[in-house]
Formats: sequence, C-alpha cells, structure tokens
Amino acid sequence: MPVDVSTAPATSSTSTIDALIGRGQEVYFSTRDAQPSMWASWMTAVADALDAAADHLVGIAERETHLTPARLSGEVTRTSGQLRLLAAAALDGSCYELTIDHADPEKTPPRPDLRRMLQGVGPVVVFAASNFPFAFSVLGGDTAAAWAAGCPVLLKIHSGHPELSWATLQVARTALRAAGAPPDWIIGFTGQQAGRQALADPRVKAGAFTGSEHVGRQLLSVAQDRPDPIPFYGELGSVNPVVVLPAAARHQREQIAGGLAASFTLGRGQFCTKPGVVAVPASARLGDAVTAHLSGMDTGALLTESIGRAFVQGTAELGQLPGVLVDHDARSTVESAGPWLGSVRLADVIAAPDAYLAERFGPATLLITYEDTDSTTVATQLASLSSILPGSLTGTVHADLDDESDIALAGTVVDRLRHRCGRIIMNSWPTGVAVAWAMHHGGPWPATTGSLHTSVGPTSIRRFLTPVSFQDMPQGLLPPVLQDGRTDLTRRIDGRLVPAA
Amino acid sequence: MPVDVSTAPATSSTSTIDALIGRGQEVYFSTRDAQPSMWASWMTAVADALDAAADHLVGIAERETHLTPARLSGEVTRTSGQLRLLAAAALDGSCYELTIDHADPEKTPPRPDLRRMLQGVGPVVVFAASNFPFAFSVLGGDTAAAWAAGCPVLLKIHSGHPELSWATLQVARTALRAAGAPPDWIIGFTGQQAGRQALADPRVKAGAFTGSEHVGRQLLSVAQDRPDPIPFYGELGSVNPVVVLPAAARHQREQIAGGLAASFTLGRGQFCTKPGVVAVPASARLGDAVTAHLSGMDTGALLTESIGRAFVQGTAELGQLPGVLVDHDARSTVESAGPWLGSVRLADVIAAPDAYLAERFGPATLLITYEDTDSTTVATQLASLSSILPGSLTGTVHADLDDESDIALAGTVVDRLRHRCGRIIMNSWPTGVAVAWAMHHGGPWPATTGSLHTSVGPTSIRRFLTPVSFQDMPQGLLPPVLQDGRTDLTRRIDGRLVPAA
Repeated sequence: MPVDVSTAPATSSTSTIDALIGRGQEVYFSTRDAQPSMWASWMTAVADALDAAADHLVGIAERETHLTPARLSGEVTRTSGQLRLLAAAALDGSCYELTIDHADPEKTPPRPDLRRMLQGVGPVVVFAASNFPFAFSVLGGDTAAAWAAGCPVLLKIHSGHPELSWATLQVARTALRAAGAPPDWIIGFTGQQAGRQALADPRVKAGAFTGSEHVGRQLLSVAQDRPDPIPFYGELGSVNPVVVLPAAARHQREQIAGGLAASFTLGRGQFCTKPGVVAVPASARLGDAVTAHLSGMDTGALLTESIGRAFVQGTAELGQLPGVLVDHDARSTVESAGPWLGSVRLADVIAAPDAYLAERFGPATLLITYEDTDSTTVATQLASLSSILPGSLTGTVHADLDDESDIALAGTVVDRLRHRCGRIIMNSWPTGVAVAWAMHHGGPWPATTGSLHTSVGPTSIRRFLTPVSFQDMPQGLLPPVLQDGRTDLTRRIDGRLVPAA
Repeated sequence: MPVDVSTAPATSSTSTIDALIGRGQEVYFSTRDAQPSMWASWMTAVADALDAAADHLVGIAERETHLTPARLSGEVTRTSGQLRLLAAAALDGSCYELTIDHADPEKTPPRPDLRRMLQGVGPVVVFAASNFPFAFSVLGGDTAAAWAAGCPVLLKIHSGHPELSWATLQVARTALRAAGAPPDWIIGFTGQQAGRQALADPRVKAGAFTGSEHVGRQLLSVAQDRPDPIPFYGELGSVNPVVVLPAAARHQREQIAGGLAASFTLGRGQFCTKPGVVAVPASARLGDAVTAHLSGMDTGALLTESIGRAFVQGTAELGQLPGVLVDHDARSTVESAGPWLGSVRLADVIAAPDAYLAERFGPATLLITYEDTDSTTVATQLASLSSILPGSLTGTVHADLDDESDIALAGTVVDRLRHRCGRIIMNSWPTGVAVAWAMHHGGPWPATTGSLHTSVGPTSIRRFLTPVSFQDMPQGLLPPVLQDGRTDLTRRIDGRLVPAA
C-alpha cells in the first residue's frame, strides 16, 4: 500500500505516521538482503538526480534559507559526493564486518562454522537540520549512512525549509523508482510530535538528529525510555575552541586574523564547526587585527526567525558578562545579522566557565586572552583552559612550526584536545568538513550524544548496523554476503582480512 | 601514588573509589599511546600467569561457586585464550580503524591531510558477573576488550566470589608488574554503591556489566543521567528460544531430547545462553523423551543463595501459570537445585507472553507445543511465536535438512530470528560460545542494552574506542600509529585497505 507523500501538511497525523512506519518496515524486509551493490546503485541514481535538479532546488533553498546560491550549489555537490562515497563504501563492504570462521574440529572444544555480519537495524528516523538544507537534511549524511546500511529512512522535515524538503524528496523518490528501487526507501513527514511518535514506535530501530542540545536531550530520552531502548545519534552543539600560540600570533598575525574573520562568519556563522572561542596571547592584540576584517562585511537574515532572535539575545548577553569587551558589533536585528566579536581575559572565564563557553549560533566569536609573558605561564593557562572546555566537534591549534616553544606547547595542547574534540586541526580552520574516509565529525557530549560515532564519512554507516552471527548454517539459509566464494566484498576469513577483489 | 588493593573490604569507601579512579586516569594517560604491540604483550603475560595459577585459582573458585573443577578449568583456558585472541586483534590493528587520507590540492575544495583512528575512551568500569567466575569476571571479556582498546579497568568485584577475585587480581597485577606494565592497569574494588559512584564519576568514560535486567536498567540510568552521558554496555537477560521443526522431531527425537537435557542443565543452567523456551511439535511428545534424561541427574547448590531462592520461586510460579504441565521437577531447595521441565501449549503463551517468556536462571526450561497437523498450520504458529519473542542472545533451530518442508520452515524461522537473536544456531545448542572472530554475543533488549555491540570476540574491543581525526598535523605531533611508514598495522590509506604486513 503506497502512501502518498507528495502533499505537505504542517504536521503529519498520528495515523499517517503509523502507516508510514508500517510501510518503512515492509521496505526494510524487502530490501534487507539486497546486495550492497544494489543499494550502491540506488544511491548513485539519487546522487545523479540531485545533481541534475541542482538549479531548481537551489532556487527554492535560496528563498527559504537566505543562504547564497554559490554556497548552496557547493552544498549540493558535497551532498551528491557524499552519497557516492558511501555507495563506494557499501561496494567495498568492509563496513559490514563480514567474517567467516570455518569449523575446526581439532580445537578444544571443537569450533563450529561461524559467520558474522552487520545488518541494517531496521527503519530509521532522521531529523533534518536547518543549517545545511542539503548536506544535513533530506539527502544528507544520515540518510546516506542509513541507506548504505540497508535501512529505509523516515525523514522528519525541518520546518525551516519545507518546500525544499518536499521537492528534494520528489527528486529522490522519482530517481529510486526509475532505478527499480522502492520509492519508499525514503518517506517524508512533518511535525515535532510526529517525530517523537516515530522515535517511540517499536518498529523503528534508530534515530539520528542534528540540532540543539535542548531538543536533543528530549529526543534522547524518548529513545532511551522505550521498553526496548534504541540507539539515538544526536549532534547537539559545539563551541569549537581555537588556540593561537604566542609565536604564531607574532609571526602570522594578519593571516590568522583574516582566517578567523572568514571562518566565524562563513555562512553567517551557522556552521556546527564555527570557531566559537579563540584563545589568544594578550600581547598580540589580535582583536584589533580581526576587527579590521569585519567592518566591511554585509549583514542579512539568518536561517530562521528564531535563530535570528537567539543570536541577537545571545550576543547581547555575552557582551554583558563580567570582563567582556565588545571589539565589534554589527548591531544585528532579528531580520539582519552581522559579525560580533568580543574579548575577555582567561581568568574571568575560569571563574565561571559555562556562560562564556556556550555555543552561540551565528556570526559571533569570543577571544579569550591569556598572559604570554613566558612559556611556563602560557602552558599553565592553556592547561587550565583545556580542563574547562566542553566537548566539541573540533579543536584548532595555530602554532609556528619553526618555533620550538610553540611546538612544545602545541604537543601539550593537541594531547589535551584529543579528549575534548573529535577533530584536531593544525594551522587551518574548522569550518571545512571534508567528506573522506579519515573524517571524524563527532565528539564528547554535547558535541554528540554518543561520542563513539561519526556523522560524516563512511564510518558513519556503523551507526545503523547491528551484528548477527550464524552457526553451522547451510549455505542456502545464509544471507548472500556470507555465503562461500564471494570475493567482491571485504571479508575476514579464518582470521585473515581479505580486501574486496 | 600506588593504591594498595591487596586487602579486601566488604565495600570500598567513597574516598577509596575517588583515589582509585584518579589512579586509573593517570594510568590511562601514561599508556594511551603505548603501541598496540605493548598492550598485546601485557595481555599475553597476564594470560600466561593465569594459566600458571589455574590450579590454585580453580580451588578457590570451586569452594566459592559450587561449580565443578572440570568446568572451572575449562573456563580458565577459555579466559586466557580470549586474552590472547584479543591481543592478536590489537596486533592486527584493524580494530583501531587507522585511516590516512593524504592531502589532495586538486580536489574542490582542496582536501587537507586527514588521519583518523579509534583511541581508548579512558578508564572503564567493569562489573563482574557471578556465573562465569573467570570468563566474565576479573580477567573476562570486558577486561580483555578494554585493555586491547588501551583502557585501564576499574573492576567491581562480584560478591559471589570475592576471594577468587582478589586472588585473580593479584595474579594479574604481579604479571603486569613483571612485564613492565603499571599494575594499576586493573584495579579492584567492592560494593554496589561504590560501583555506582565509579560509573557516575566524570573521569570514567564507559561501563560494562553482565547481570540482571533490574540492576542493568539502574546502572544504565546512572550512565545516561550524567551531565555527559557515557556508553554503558549491559548484558541483561536472555530466554534463548529453540525451535524444533516437525521432521527433525520425528527423525532425530532421541538425539534432540538428549541434547536439550544436557544443554539446559549445563553448569546447573546458569549460562546466559541456556535454552529457556523450546517450541516443539505436539505430536512428537518430546517432553517424555527429555524427561527420560533428567531423572538420574544430580542436584546441588547454585552460584549464590539468592540465585537458589529465585530458582525455587521462579519454577514454582512457572508451574502454576495457566496451562503449564510439569514434566519433571527435582523438587529443588535453595541449597540444592536440580532440573525442572514443563510444557505448555503455544495458544496459552500467546494469550499472555510475558510470564512464560521471562528468563529463569538455573536448570529449568519450558517446552511450548505447537500443533503440527500440516505445514501451513506450523508456519502460522511459528510466525506468531516469533512476533512475541523478547530479544535474546541466541536462537536455535532444529531442522531435518533432508526434508523439504523443514527446510522451507527453517528459512522463515531463521529470517525472523535474525531480528530477535544475536546468534542463530542450526542443529546444535546455544550453550557453547566459541571465542572467535565471527562470534556475536549480544542481541536486542533485554539481551543487551545496546544491541549494536558484542561482548565476546575481537569486535568487542570497539565498545571502548572513540574516534579522533587529525588534520594537517605534523608527523611529530601524531600518535605513533598514524605516522607515515607503518606497515605492521592494518590501515586504510587513500581509500584502500592495507592489511597488516
């Protein structure tokens, strides 16, 4: 029974959600043992269709999100590229951890024939994000990962770009149908209560979310308080600390100032990896150098009105915290936001860390100045700062790699950031998130709910996979990927890893 | 400051736990970047020491647990073998997902140098189980997995075998010291409240537990309600359904009856994989055949008095459920338990599943009879049964693989059990759990809290690892395992999987 999802109600009704989940479950069982090559071909078809529809979709997105066409077009390319990379990972097959241990009657006790794989958990609810209307929305990383795991997606549309979402769903579902896949491999719905209903439904087996810590905690509770708790992967908030070391600040002052100004205002500061706090040596007076880059910048609307309101209020509050000096303030309104830069001494932050170190979504950043009279003093202060940093997606270090003191300090800082941040960046900026095998996009709470998984890159597929082993099972009753003789997928056979042929 | 753990208080004090955790954290930071080869050598040293001390330890264990010396000796071998297998996995290195994507300036946007690994989460609290005083206790699978991840272990000793636990700790710590490792790579403590304190401490980064659903839920809440929730891996309870198909029951009746009797009474039924419910065709009268194997069996004490009490009460309750016929009852007491076998019709179970399908720890199992007049009737009934089964560690099918009807039914049953059970066994019994690459020991709630991870085999290491990526990091600041030129560990380089040399 196909469900019509081409119309767009404000909130999907309880009975609609119930029917959609039933359909998702049917699709799961009918595609669960499709070959990874089949999933990959479907994903590639959707990626191609997305690229072909880019102009049309970017036009809608521009109107709904206030982001620039250049930025949105780049995001489409990133999104289709991500679908293709995860399709390639499915073809490689290592993500399924296919493992065969043949029977060994010589062992004590004799070992049976054992075969293990990771299989898709079942239908997955994905909550789209507002700030990447392509890359973290309908066809974003969570959907790509669920698909590569063999899981149909129930997609909770973000209220910030509903028209774009339905249009993207249309593109995806048409491409799936043309590729011979069930179009209901992805099903859209709307409404917060509907999202909670789906997450609580026993037929749904995992959830993924990108958004605020407040909503993330609520949804996490829904997933955990079920009679059968299910995994819930939330990416919630990140302050993305940057540490500028003394020699770097002396020798690369202008370059760092320009880079920081560009990074924290990129996409109007609405990136989960926006640098939110920047530790700088007091003597370098980096605030002046950054400010010089901000005055000419344009202002404009943020993604939604509520994000605009939170930005205006958040920067006002930040400016009134003890010790904060406002270096630059574009006097943002709810309709039109521009850059905000402030400075505060490290000692003030250490006295009451929470208020200073909270994420502020939008084009704002806070410089935290430390005393740089000598390197011992610097080391002590950076150790204190590291100990109060909340978990973040990224941590960035700017060091002069020709300077021994900076190198030594960098070693210590990197060592500490490794346990507070998911990705440590040297002499660059955190706002670019390459879609690559080696990317990690995650981090300790509140960066993510789990901290053990990534939401970008091929290893993100693992979130939607669950192990199962078969013991002494006849070939004909095994899932195809565990049968004898396959060489097209990476498998571990009798302890030895055999890459895909 | 080494902490003296050679004495055995009933409950470790709050300040003791605080000091032990501090010590665990110190050890974590000092061994975090030791080579996997170092961890492997330490684990092997402990395995050797455990084997060498087997006679001494088995003597203590026999007295404390009432298990037989043969069973306990076998368990020691299994435990040291597990340490060695996980040490081998550490040497192979694939568990750390070492990934290098070299910089690619030709890409749009240009890709930086990215390197990703899984690192140990930090100090881990392991709650020992009662029923495997070696394999799921001090040096059991959770400890081995945490060590292979580079995580020190804070070991909550099970009150069922404290003397054995302290003696095992002594063996392990002496071996670690002799191998040049910090003996505090494992630290023991006692007491339920102390366990909760440790799990709630911000320096502790994960927990692992094997025990009851009741206690597991409580500990899960402690881990999840922290300001920064941490992963908690509980293995809680499992009914381990067995389905005997009609032709198998006709042609292998005696063999199945003998196998079942041996399996559900093995180790006095105190296995997490004990078959707790067995669907059998009514016409085969399998109850009579199983009963014939039970009458001669000896009786004896269960692991602890409280387990004995729960068994006596649980079988009494089970015998009084509507429709249950008691086929065999050894008239167990708290001090001396023996086999219990009952039968009930499937229709009665479907009317009120929860009571019949609860785990009952000890030598008891319940036959669930289905009507086998024709194969359509059988298929319908087995579908109904599958839909009410709780999550289990294992699911077992007995089928006559020369019979077409059984083969067809087996296909359907296996397909359904794949989503209710972590391991599906054909024509054997679930009580043996091979320690092998392809083993999965886990399953949907309440078998485990997470259902995405195993607690046996090399992939169990993943539970205690968390990703981190380094971007454009100079070689000297990278962890050794991510530096250029290593060929001793499995890595993925520029998308290509390169097995360890």
